[in-house]
Amino acid sequence: MPSRVKLIVAYNGAPFSGWQSQAGGNGIQDHLEKAFAQIGLGDICVHGAGRTDAGVHALAQCAHLDLSSKRYDLDRCRSALNGVLPPTIRVMRCSFVAGSFHARFSATGKIYRYRIWNGEVLPPLEYGRAWHVRQPLHLPSMSQAALIFLGRHDFASFAANRGTPVTDTVRTLHRVQLRRVGRVISIEIEGDGFLYKMARMIAGALVEVGLRKVTADAIQSRLRRSGKKTSQTRLVAPANGLFLVRVRY
Amino acid sequence: MPSRVKLIVAYNGAPFSGWQSQAGGNGIQDHLEKAFAQIGLGDICVHGAGRTDAGVHALAQCAHLDLSSKRYDLDRCRSALNGVLPPTIRVMRCSFVAGSFHARFSATGKIYRYRIWNGEVLPPLEYGRAWHVRQPLHLPSMSQAALIFLGRHDFASFAANRGTPVTDTVRTLHRVQLRRVGRVISIEIEGDGFLYKMARMIAGALVEVGLRKVTADAIQSRLRRSGKKTSQTRLVAPANGLFLVRVRY
Repeated sequence: MPSRVKLIVAYNGAPFSGWQSQAGGNGIQDHLEKAFAQIGLGDICVHGAGRTDAGVHALAQCAHLDLSSKRYDLDRCRSALNGVLPPTIRVMRCSFVAGSFHARFSATGKIYRYRIWNGEVLPPLEYGRAWHVRQPLHLPSMSQAALIFLGRHDFASFAANRGTPVTDTVRTLHRVQLRRVGRVISIEIEGDGFLYKMARMIAGALVEVGLRKVTADAIQSRLRRSGKKTSQTRLVAPANGLFLVRVRY
Repeated sequence: MPSRVKLIVAYNGAPFSGWQSQAGGNGIQDHLEKAFAQIGLGDICVHGAGRTDAGVHALAQCAHLDLSSKRYDLDRCRSALNGVLPPTIRVMRCSFVAGSFHARFSATGKIYRYRIWNGEVLPPLEYGRAWHVRQPLHLPSMSQAALIFLGRHDFASFAANRGTPVTDTVRTLHRVQLRRVGRVISIEIEGDGFLYKMARMIAGALVEVGLRKVTADAIQSRLRRSGKKTSQTRLVAPANGLFLVRVRY
């Protein structure tokens, strides 16, 4: 009887082509599946809670997979996996779960964090881990505009087209919280789900508000216009400032 | 009349062969001198406050150099330099100083920070920025042993041989401070000067104390034995956990 395993996976997204399996084999998923084969667990299919784009980081992505039995020591599995994975991918936790658990369909919510370095020079140790915005950002305006996104909305105008049509573009955000520590502004967004590039388009819109290029009213009406076709250009914040913080179940 | 300029430089040490100019041209110094040539300022010699080894990071290394005149806009120089430097090296500040200023000889002290990740799995975003120590470290013992280093001592037994003999191995440490935040233990060391690999050998010794492999008494007598020849093996903490935080003048 197969036994379902839940993985908590962290990664630095920089060297990879995103979560999803790729022809070139450089998706995080590819590296994990290869690692399972390398430690002798055979042909394992790893199912993630959701895709992250190339360059996006994860502190705690979640995934599930099925082993042939429960007779595995998961602590040793984890060590063995980490022994063959690149150091920029790590299995942080590994546990048996009920067969009904599904990393994607059982998820009830996600938390993303977007980091901005707001200063003249981007410190080398922040490179690849924050969006470098030189011009001063007005945080109170951004925090004010962030409130617009709270609650249940059709977020179609804050999503990119993945190629496949998404029928339901209504999502609920429980928290959009801004914080400044030194020159870092972080935007933490918690919601029941996220459309393609939604977190990065919200971050992009808030930065435009912080730069006084766009008003909160404009954000409000863009959100209301969701579903209607528009030719507006939409700023997508760079991938390397985004962190998947947690998947809720 | 030449005009002396002081630079504050930050870098992620991982891709470089250390501060000092190397035959291969991959020292931080080489990259800075190349950048000056690229922006049209010609053949500039950059003098650092001190060498950092391959892999060691700097939040604020200090250096000086001479320009042919004071008729340069240093803000524009800084931007131009950062435009041609790799993103893992950044000139953070740039200012004219008195001709008597010397990055190395005017320095009155330095602050180093050593970071340790003390947990089972090293998160990918900590990779290359901390020493991964799996076994639990006993912080109170380490803090206690750290007191031994305070003050004026002959640190010869906490230094590696660089090949060139150092005549004076007496240094004064003003602060050796340990702090745990989550799984990160940081050791901040402030002193009037540091011998070759001294910060990393102090960090190594403190970790051995934290692992209960070495007693504070053994550290004490090792420090007293300085100057006398010994065949003891000395643990040098890995370079990539070390950060040059500040140079004092």
